[in-house]
Amino acid sequence: MNYKIRAARKEDCKDIARMIMELAVFEKMPDQVNISVEELERDGFCPNPFFECLIAEMSDEHNSKCGLTVVGYALYFFTYSTWKGPTVFLEDLYVMPEFRGNGVGKGLMSKVAKVAKEKRCVRLQLAVLDWNSPARDFYAAKGAQDLTDSEGWHFIRFDGLSLDNLVKEAPKD
Amino acid sequence: MNYKIRAARKEDCKDIARMIMELAVFEKMPDQVNISVEELERDGFCPNPFFECLIAEMSDEHNSKCGLTVVGYALYFFTYSTWKGPTVFLEDLYVMPEFRGNGVGKGLMSKVAKVAKEKRCVRLQLAVLDWNSPARDFYAAKGAQDLTDSEGWHFIRFDGLSLDNLVKEAPKD
Repeated sequence: MNYKIRAARKEDCKDIARMIMELAVFEKMPDQVNISVEELERDGFCPNPFFECLIAEMSDEHNSKCGLTVVGYALYFFTYSTWKGPTVFLEDLYVMPEFRGNGVGKGLMSKVAKVAKEKRCVRLQLAVLDWNSPARDFYAAKGAQDLTDSEGWHFIRFDGLSLDNLVKEAPKD
Repeated sequence: MNYKIRAARKEDCKDIARMIMELAVFEKMPDQVNISVEELERDGFCPNPFFECLIAEMSDEHNSKCGLTVVGYALYFFTYSTWKGPTVFLEDLYVMPEFRGNGVGKGLMSKVAKVAKEKRCVRLQLAVLDWNSPARDFYAAKGAQDLTDSEGWHFIRFDGLSLDNLVKEAPKD
């Protein structure tokens, strides 16, 4: 399998948006996706972008059944631990089904780790669904800890009305 | 209770470091803290900082038993949802025990929500420990969802050797 991993460019956002939806379908929440190519372009390819992204690109002779060459992506951003310092969060890691089992996902994740290490990050973190055993097994085999199981951390989210209500209660400047 | 919430300044890092340790003691993991005042200054008060921070500051007549005036903090950074767009993550929210029950924590969180909304964020997220019922009840009362309970999201972490091993496996450029 002849492929390369490279930093995403603005013109990759169409492919990224396509794969974001493919990943959401796999995660059984496609109705939650509400992002456009234009928003990805604006948020990821500006000064101080909200995210960075790596792309897995096949050489022409190994392209997909539909003729696609961009077959995987890893989207990440830098976060911070007040106990340890800079960290990286891997928001999405995806490889198209017909290209799995060839180390592309591992290559993408390792490359994110390398980029993060160069930025002094001491952790790579991500979120995984409890029923996604292939992913959980893969991370465990690579030595990752499940912090929800071992320490009891839960994800909490405010959005929509609950976020609006918080904003309304903010003390005046 | 007369207090104000303001953006942290570099010279607040000593107070922030003190409260980071107080929070870690409450979370029963003080031995995990490995951050210095200098690192906080470097990582939070530079171009493209890794985090932003708000401070709760008491007026002199309401200062703590030890004469401290900085009695709470909210440390956060901007993240990204590939389904919804810009989001904010509240890494730490802390108020010193003797100042709790006066709305300071709520004020800090609401102010983070307001700052986030101004940056187009559509979510405020955080992590909480399963045994921390006061915090979980507080978030639930404010309308937050527990994504670990409702959708099954788990936190996964690579650090130390597991992160080094990932980096070693990264494909060459």
